[in-house]
Amino acid sequence: MASVRIREAKEGDCGDILRLIRELAEFENLSDQVKISEEALRADGFGENPFYHCLVAEILPASGELLGQGIGSKIIKKVAEVALDKGCSQFRLAVLDWNQRAMDLYKALGACDLTEAEGWHFFRFEGEAMRKLAGK
Amino acid sequence: MASVRIREAKEGDCGDILRLIRELAEFENLSDQVKISEEALRADGFGENPFYHCLVAEILPASGELLGQGIGSKIIKKVAEVALDKGCSQFRLAVLDWNQRAMDLYKALGACDLTEAEGWHFFRFEGEAMRKLAGK
Repeated sequence: MASVRIREAKEGDCGDILRLIRELAEFENLSDQVKISEEALRADGFGENPFYHCLVAEILPASGELLGQGIGSKIIKKVAEVALDKGCSQFRLAVLDWNQRAMDLYKALGACDLTEAEGWHFFRFEGEAMRKLAGK
Repeated sequence: MASVRIREAKEGDCGDILRLIRELAEFENLSDQVKISEEALRADGFGENPFYHCLVAEILPASGELLGQGIGSKIIKKVAEVALDKGCSQFRLAVLDWNQRAMDLYKALGACDLTEAEGWHFFRFEGEAMRKLAGK
């Protein structure tokens, strides 16, 4: 059984965070969408008015097998705790519709699939479309 | 033709912002989900580390007809401008799948429907589920 500790990320974690972002994107078949650098992660998360907050799970594995140890649940529980402490009334996750394992976990933890239940779609503006809109 | 000015919201706009949130929720048949108060809108948007930023469109209508004047496009263009100024590489909107008018507008302005194109779903944790997760 792995020993897991959830803590706030530090600026020095950004190299590992970027590695995990890349591994997740690879799993999602979306590697081409990872354009952020370690430098940008540092600037965005650890400046005066951070764009994001991040928790990391420190794991001391007793064996090489990490899946099925409840690490996902532990992080989501911590997110709920932090969100309530900050006065949030809800938090949201995005998941790909073929990632059944993640969707099953979120539902088991009490989440509602808003896309399925109410029909919400994500729309993204980026790059050229943004610059054209802004006239830049 | 209406005259439109897009500007940053001020704390004193919160009453009108809440009214517009309620009108939008009514249009979306989701009025039961509006639980925020004007007081919370003031606290969340105008404290030291704001939870949200808001633009408002000031409109001087020459007639009673406001639709079709391009107000939605003007706000989205301003969002793109602000986002680029702040160093964002993208921004996202959420839209209900029956709101064809909005989806057509976003696509015409260059957005990608990530739910349609890649299968992204929104999951929401709130209320009792959050408290249970946090053990509160």
